[in-house]
Amino acid sequence: MVSDRPAVVLLSGGLDSATCLALARRDGFAPHALSFRYGQRHAVELDAAAAIAAASGVPHTVLTLDLGRLGGSALTDPSIPVPTGRPAEALGAAESGIPVTYVPARNTVFLAHALALAEVLGAADVFIGVNAVDYSGYPDCRPEFIAAFETMANLATKAAVEGRRLRIHAPLLHTTKAGIIRLGAELGVDLAATVSCYDPDPTGAACGSCDACVLRARGFAEAGLADPTRYVVRPGRTGG
Amino acid sequence: MVSDRPAVVLLSGGLDSATCLALARRDGFAPHALSFRYGQRHAVELDAAAAIAAASGVPHTVLTLDLGRLGGSALTDPSIPVPTGRPAEALGAAESGIPVTYVPARNTVFLAHALALAEVLGAADVFIGVNAVDYSGYPDCRPEFIAAFETMANLATKAAVEGRRLRIHAPLLHTTKAGIIRLGAELGVDLAATVSCYDPDPTGAACGSCDACVLRARGFAEAGLADPTRYVVRPGRTGG
Repeated sequence: MVSDRPAVVLLSGGLDSATCLALARRDGFAPHALSFRYGQRHAVELDAAAAIAAASGVPHTVLTLDLGRLGGSALTDPSIPVPTGRPAEALGAAESGIPVTYVPARNTVFLAHALALAEVLGAADVFIGVNAVDYSGYPDCRPEFIAAFETMANLATKAAVEGRRLRIHAPLLHTTKAGIIRLGAELGVDLAATVSCYDPDPTGAACGSCDACVLRARGFAEAGLADPTRYVVRPGRTGG
Repeated sequence: MVSDRPAVVLLSGGLDSATCLALARRDGFAPHALSFRYGQRHAVELDAAAAIAAASGVPHTVLTLDLGRLGGSALTDPSIPVPTGRPAEALGAAESGIPVTYVPARNTVFLAHALALAEVLGAADVFIGVNAVDYSGYPDCRPEFIAAFETMANLATKAAVEGRRLRIHAPLLHTTKAGIIRLGAELGVDLAATVSCYDPDPTGAACGSCDACVLRARGFAEAGLADPTRYVVRPGRTGG
């Protein structure tokens, strides 16, 4: 489908954002993928994002951010270990709290840049693959956050003042990880190319025990699909 | 006054943000100044920010952003000239439109980083020196934008989930430029150290004809204070 509706799609290189990109294309948008080098522990996910964007034939911008200098997260501060071995059913539950892998204001910072790029491109649509079902309990993955960001964005820009309404699409907000995997597979996403692990080894193999690996592995099991992920240690099946 | 109430203060090196920093100190906060190297044409304003933070004895963080790569503004794209010679009374008026010095989503990106730093510092207060009276007509300087950002911020963070409410203070929102200059002078701000010009020459002298110079010069005239700015060509007095 040929489209002239430009859209910005945040692309981390993970399962959810890769599927989100495929959804944007299916729905007739001409996506521009946006990723960030923000001080994360590993570049593996950026390599994955580049490969996914290239396979989709969409332009891809990688911006460098200074979030790592602020610290405060296991994902950007090597002195804070990534927690492992938490069972899938405990993740995202209110009583389990927000994990140390939470990066302060990360999605706010990412969406702010997406808003800037959207304005430069003349795009009225931004896609983000956040999920509030099978997730780590991050506050900036919740539907009320996305809605409030959209409201703010529609007061922030020249486009808004001129009456062009911006929409933040979070089409996977209420989908289970298994549902996202099924959808990604249907849309032809190369799921093996995606990276979820918070702490892969230098070869890019997934640790198999961080929250993201645990949720991913359970998702494949529940979807009834073979898990193509290269793990250091394959996660035990939990929950489901 | 000794304070243990940490606050993040956005400090551009201009008149408004320097006065905002002084206000935060007067009101008993322990400010942490935050500036950005975002691809702006000149580093003069960052030197000014560093000097102001040092004179105030507050910690100062300068983060590097990639906004310049996105383009779309005369402040970050050398191929777009900074407009000059617009009379003060035309600036900020609805019919004059949003000028090309507007940087797409800049205050959204700046406040997003301030939110991240506030969370890392355990601060519940962020100060921004935006002004919606004598200003260039930027959408992200309006009170409704600031209010919407605060609402969004209170859904975005771990602190918010844990019940610590974040406040975005914009104490100069409704103050005229003359009022800000008087207030800054009263609070002991070194106004000569501040930089407003969008396009200073390599020595740091203000052009005297961009919107920011025109508003600044009129502000000093209206405040009845000698304008200590070093101009290439001193602005003609207009309006007021």
